[in-house]
Amino acid sequence: MSKILIRAMVLPMTGPEDFYPEGEIGIENDRILFVGEKGSAPDSFIPDQIIDLPEDVVMPGLINTHTHAAMTMLRSYADDLPLMPWLQTKIWPFEDKMSDEDIYWGTLLALGEMIQSGTTTMLDMYASMDQVAKAVLEAGTRGVLSRGLIGNAPNGERAFAENMDLVKNYHGAGQGRIQVMFGPHAPYTCSGEFLQRVKQEADRLGVGIHIHVAETEDEIKTIKEQYGKTPVQWLEELGLFGGHVVAAHCVHLTEEDQEIMAQNKVFIAHNPESNMKLNSGTAPIPELRSRGVVVGLGTDGTSSNNNLDMFGEMRSAAFQQKLVKGATALPAYEVLQMATVDGARTLGLHDVGVLAPGYKADLISINFDQPHFYPRFSIPAHLVYVAHAGDVRTVMVDGKILMQERQLMTIDIKRVCREVEKRAKGIAQGL
Amino acid sequence: MSKILIRAMVLPMTGPEDFYPEGEIGIENDRILFVGEKGSAPDSFIPDQIIDLPEDVVMPGLINTHTHAAMTMLRSYADDLPLMPWLQTKIWPFEDKMSDEDIYWGTLLALGEMIQSGTTTMLDMYASMDQVAKAVLEAGTRGVLSRGLIGNAPNGERAFAENMDLVKNYHGAGQGRIQVMFGPHAPYTCSGEFLQRVKQEADRLGVGIHIHVAETEDEIKTIKEQYGKTPVQWLEELGLFGGHVVAAHCVHLTEEDQEIMAQNKVFIAHNPESNMKLNSGTAPIPELRSRGVVVGLGTDGTSSNNNLDMFGEMRSAAFQQKLVKGATALPAYEVLQMATVDGARTLGLHDVGVLAPGYKADLISINFDQPHFYPRFSIPAHLVYVAHAGDVRTVMVDGKILMQERQLMTIDIKRVCREVEKRAKGIAQGL
Repeated sequence: MSKILIRAMVLPMTGPEDFYPEGEIGIENDRILFVGEKGSAPDSFIPDQIIDLPEDVVMPGLINTHTHAAMTMLRSYADDLPLMPWLQTKIWPFEDKMSDEDIYWGTLLALGEMIQSGTTTMLDMYASMDQVAKAVLEAGTRGVLSRGLIGNAPNGERAFAENMDLVKNYHGAGQGRIQVMFGPHAPYTCSGEFLQRVKQEADRLGVGIHIHVAETEDEIKTIKEQYGKTPVQWLEELGLFGGHVVAAHCVHLTEEDQEIMAQNKVFIAHNPESNMKLNSGTAPIPELRSRGVVVGLGTDGTSSNNNLDMFGEMRSAAFQQKLVKGATALPAYEVLQMATVDGARTLGLHDVGVLAPGYKADLISINFDQPHFYPRFSIPAHLVYVAHAGDVRTVMVDGKILMQERQLMTIDIKRVCREVEKRAKGIAQGL
Repeated sequence: MSKILIRAMVLPMTGPEDFYPEGEIGIENDRILFVGEKGSAPDSFIPDQIIDLPEDVVMPGLINTHTHAAMTMLRSYADDLPLMPWLQTKIWPFEDKMSDEDIYWGTLLALGEMIQSGTTTMLDMYASMDQVAKAVLEAGTRGVLSRGLIGNAPNGERAFAENMDLVKNYHGAGQGRIQVMFGPHAPYTCSGEFLQRVKQEADRLGVGIHIHVAETEDEIKTIKEQYGKTPVQWLEELGLFGGHVVAAHCVHLTEEDQEIMAQNKVFIAHNPESNMKLNSGTAPIPELRSRGVVVGLGTDGTSSNNNLDMFGEMRSAAFQQKLVKGATALPAYEVLQMATVDGARTLGLHDVGVLAPGYKADLISINFDQPHFYPRFSIPAHLVYVAHAGDVRTVMVDGKILMQERQLMTIDIKRVCREVEKRAKGIAQGL
């Protein structure tokens, strides 16, 4: 039994009015016992450890609802190119050369960066996902893992089998820190028949589906030509929705598409920086939210961003919507909800994303004793419009400290950086 | 005589191909003696101090070409509101209560934040500019200062006189670290006659002009109604151009406006985050650059951003243009140019903005030994798409170290933070 008391400013993300300027959080093992203003601790609570962070804001760990972690290996390898030449001449040839070990080291680097920027949970889609699982277990974070399935590719069936193995071997591993979903890549890379088989297996095994949907205008055009409908209409007709589905991007949705998403309770992973950098477009986030659709926030992979910083992503989410929809669109607190509580719902995780009794102790502290956080008129506005990755001081997942005073506790990060540098440059030189 | 040798990766911003992975910079007093690969030092150069930063990238200090520094006092005081209610019910009443001392402390806080995020020079526009000058002299940074002049306001003439005093008392102060410009606010807040008098005085005193131009559609409409032309056409007709003019924002320009800017060699201060957050629009930056117009980058004030982080601004500049103009718009190195060499040209400073012999020793180091900077495929892409404010390790202006290992050397930042917190909250409570 381990009991920890944290004293800090606490933003529990349980509602816009909830904030404790001199707050306390009590933790027993992996879960939160109590959260509140100073003096909330019951007399019976005798902590083994007290963490005093009076100048820090403690909030739920950030949840990255769409990424390809191992793509850190390709960070800044190719930028500022049109989409297809970028993919065909740079990204795909590089990825083709990546080994299981490369994916392990690339993921571990991503997890180091995520922890240092306050992200405690990711939804990942890539290959060699047993390597990703291994990295997540070592790093101590939380991960929902999906094997990317290009149904139309020669290895489509093998990948499908790997995704089934992933469910069998890792769903619930690490005391529940790892969950598994199926990862059919997109409606234009998987046939209708393949998608229906994925859906069948997902239902049989009781896991969710993670899929790219309506990311680019090209995709809309392709699917229209092929099936005479929008990607969302097509997926609905196939019967893909109904269970737990996370649809990444959803940049180009008709009103009817939005309604289909709402009625089928599809979850959206919104990736503003990738959508801007690759010129994909602006997703209708306020519109989706007003229909009751739950929207999480994601960074996408580092080849289209080029970092995994959810603070930057929050700022960009607000800026992009305000630019396109008006200055009042997507206020700060709503952006924070997308990065925490709604991110958890998007991933189907029912005990993370807010700081409240019974929830997992997944939390971060942000060092507010820096010039850019003064004066302290609004904590939510500061977190969304001011904070950056380097402000995160402490990170805890499942009650275990993963970072303290910016020092990573579970990852030998110098070694990981050296390994990735060597491996990534090696692949690039061979191309 | 002080001689410093810096050993680091060096990105001098003298051209896209120039980069020294094991570089050296020699500094004598306030100026750079040599820059190059290891071994560049002449035999006669015996340094008093060697600064070894093998894992850092050293580059020119960033240049913020448009801000209202003292508005840190209003940081996160009001957000997510439509423009006019935001100004009328929040920003203006607060500013109305700010004293000379508030402006001093607010500016010092801004300078602390700027140094910590790698900005060595700003172009500022505000009131009580002697207080701003005092703060800049203390902080050790470089500043081009302009008194904001609302010609149509009751204090318009007094402000004009203050701007003239500012030229007299501070132009060239601090061994040239302070330069002065006139700061007529905008074509819709100053009459044509007032603007012509400003231009006359600027010419007489040999200083530049800093003015907001074509920021919002409302402004275009107002000026069209009043004068039957665009703001740029109107300013040209008045004869405001021709000398050194910095036009901030320039979001809404016709082709003809752009041509006028090019022909008159008007410099543009581009503020993407403010333009996005306030829904002002997207400035035609690639178009202006292709016409040969020099464009610098600015953060605007912290009430519309809400920080002074030029790394965030660089990312946003690229993202906004890519979203609107296409994935190949505004590549990373061009963004870096805007934040350094072109920023210096925008401000009329001929010996900062690049690292080269004879230039002032205004430079920063960025700690690249962190997970988000691996692998190191492209230093420019990492700086624009990955880096954040907290990555800056060292800052030097005029050969003097202003920050070392993130510790500010010239500002008692704890005291400044406390002062600003007390003063800002005091004003807010009185409203």
